[in-house]
Amino acid sequence: MIAEIVSVGTELLMGQVVNTDAQFIAQGLAPLGFQVYYHTTVGDNVKRLTAVVHQAVERSDVVVFTGGLGPTDDDLTKETVAAALGLTVEPIPEEVERLTQHFASRGYEFTPNNLKQASFPKSALILPNAFGTAPGCIMTAENKTAILLPGPPRELFPMFQNHVMPYLERLSGNKLYSRELRIFGKGESSVTYELRDIIENQTNPTVAPYVKTGEVTLRVTALCQNDAEGEALARPMIAAILERLGDVVYSTVGESLPETCARMLTDDRQTLAVAESCTGGLLASELVAIPGCSKFLLEGCVAYSDAAKVRRLGVKQETLDAFGAVSEQCAREMAEGIRASSGAGYALATTGFAGPDGGTDENPVGTVYIALASHSGTEVKHIRLFGERARIREIACLHAFDLLRRKLCL
Amino acid sequence: MIAEIVSVGTELLMGQVVNTDAQFIAQGLAPLGFQVYYHTTVGDNVKRLTAVVHQAVERSDVVVFTGGLGPTDDDLTKETVAAALGLTVEPIPEEVERLTQHFASRGYEFTPNNLKQASFPKSALILPNAFGTAPGCIMTAENKTAILLPGPPRELFPMFQNHVMPYLERLSGNKLYSRELRIFGKGESSVTYELRDIIENQTNPTVAPYVKTGEVTLRVTALCQNDAEGEALARPMIAAILERLGDVVYSTVGESLPETCARMLTDDRQTLAVAESCTGGLLASELVAIPGCSKFLLEGCVAYSDAAKVRRLGVKQETLDAFGAVSEQCAREMAEGIRASSGAGYALATTGFAGPDGGTDENPVGTVYIALASHSGTEVKHIRLFGERARIREIACLHAFDLLRRKLCL
Repeated sequence: MIAEIVSVGTELLMGQVVNTDAQFIAQGLAPLGFQVYYHTTVGDNVKRLTAVVHQAVERSDVVVFTGGLGPTDDDLTKETVAAALGLTVEPIPEEVERLTQHFASRGYEFTPNNLKQASFPKSALILPNAFGTAPGCIMTAENKTAILLPGPPRELFPMFQNHVMPYLERLSGNKLYSRELRIFGKGESSVTYELRDIIENQTNPTVAPYVKTGEVTLRVTALCQNDAEGEALARPMIAAILERLGDVVYSTVGESLPETCARMLTDDRQTLAVAESCTGGLLASELVAIPGCSKFLLEGCVAYSDAAKVRRLGVKQETLDAFGAVSEQCAREMAEGIRASSGAGYALATTGFAGPDGGTDENPVGTVYIALASHSGTEVKHIRLFGERARIREIACLHAFDLLRRKLCL
Repeated sequence: MIAEIVSVGTELLMGQVVNTDAQFIAQGLAPLGFQVYYHTTVGDNVKRLTAVVHQAVERSDVVVFTGGLGPTDDDLTKETVAAALGLTVEPIPEEVERLTQHFASRGYEFTPNNLKQASFPKSALILPNAFGTAPGCIMTAENKTAILLPGPPRELFPMFQNHVMPYLERLSGNKLYSRELRIFGKGESSVTYELRDIIENQTNPTVAPYVKTGEVTLRVTALCQNDAEGEALARPMIAAILERLGDVVYSTVGESLPETCARMLTDDRQTLAVAESCTGGLLASELVAIPGCSKFLLEGCVAYSDAAKVRRLGVKQETLDAFGAVSEQCAREMAEGIRASSGAGYALATTGFAGPDGGTDENPVGTVYIALASHSGTEVKHIRLFGERARIREIACLHAFDLLRRKLCL
């Protein structure tokens, strides 16, 4: 079934709030197998709202509306949608009674415009609002379903979860099974070029690439009746992608690189310490973001200054004098130093020029050395990154985690 | 002039990301006097995208598109918009040259599908992308303006700010002067309630609140002919807001809390060391994100385990035994320990339960102790936060920076 989301509100059009409602609703619709083709935002204007409502009801089976259910003359969603479906809105006695009591219990007067909030088509399913005065509702006519929800997220989220999701599950009888393949070490254009025949010939399952800083994610999605069928549909495509791309795919279950490292360290009962210069706490922070990190993370040291590298990590002053802090030698001593003093099985260290200033002819801004020390010795990776400071630090962390992941795979 | 925003991307339709691009663009358009009537999101599907493009170009004077500018066959925005405006896309020699060099300098191959990213209508204004490979562009035909921008916010935001806003200012004949007041320690509803008369009576300048984790930003925007006039228009409103809200406003020039601390430490030639348990590297990382942090940041220690607290920070085992690691006493010893051993003028320490597990009846999940040690002694702040692990860690950092900022203001 085809679905779309229509958000009504001038505050959204003006950018005063970001549309988290649309994201939340889409996240509920997609896994149930609804094909969400459009999100539209429109203001509280009867002519434009009417046009949008008609277009949506025409081209989609299910339309979810947010906002415009309040008591003021500006709030037009319910009346406009009902008219488009050929339904009439009238005060519903139980709702009038409920709202009257609600206002009385708070010492407020029930003014005529509050009657709007107690009015629905007779055939509508009314959805109680646990966190506000405007109920939602579901209207159906001629095989079309319109779901009307209040705009404020704190009212909409629980109403959607508790009342709309069970309704949509019954309506769809369908399910999506989806798997995330995560890739580090190959860019989006290479990935899609190498998989171009798989991407071009996709039917069910589908495969779609998404990019985030330094990484590519492939989402494989199968339309199915249940998880077992979905898994069976997805498996051959995942196998084909793995065969093609090899070990740049570090997860087939949507784990991030730090999560992958954390799981492997925990499973192997291994421990880790990190010593950071240019990434300055980011490596540690991405590990501490994972619940249970105390099982493997012994400690971290942010040694941004040369003095801290000497004092805390035992880097030799001669090394700094001879090669500088951004060097293979310094990275090696940082990792070996913290591994020895912490007693960790593995130690990662980073040192580099994150910019915008600094750097030398030999080691320009973007140069990063990453060291991994373990029982089997120390390896140092020399990388050269581009972009702004934040990006260089983020991608340096990904390289560090990837180095550790590959070591733990051996 | 009538404007609308069209976002292209299946990841938006599926709810995998929230549409911050549309909000950001709307915030730029609305104050310039453009009437933004619609936001539409559509997927990478040629038929539906074409229909949306035609409808948008028909009903609006200016259409801003986001997404679908990448190198893959899925990326259709440029070709579809050009066709709707009766323009043809062809490789632009300067762009082919630029991209070829870009790839060569990184050791990547320039694959045939990269040619797409160097192709534009001959008449288009090409917008350089400082943070990615896909340039944006502005196409005009028959009094219609189409502005095409890349989807990733880190590419779009600076491109919009640096290249699109000046273009829109010329197009509208208006100019914007805008100032950001940043607030920590008072929620959005309190802020807007205390400023309700200012907000209700706004004309020029306008004031709009925006919320991000733990913070409120007020953006004061004046429509003007030049910066001097804008500043003169904004000044009385900013003064009135400061008078009303007092010292919860920590910046009137859009600086973040870590930036404010970094500037004050640098100006005062003071030094800082940080010792982190629950924030685990985040405090250090937010400081290292600031260029020039070596001027004040001596070192950081991530002491997530009790053993590291004892070994690295000199926390007494008796303190841990008597009060536990999440305690005022432990926070105090962490800060004093790293201040003494690093020789820093100021030292910040954090310890708490970030969840989801852990916590005690007395100190449940969300309890954080923050200590600030300095020449004038040590103060410890006890806070109780709510929400998920990432949020608790982020807000704990804000409290730590705010404690330091207030100390440095004395």
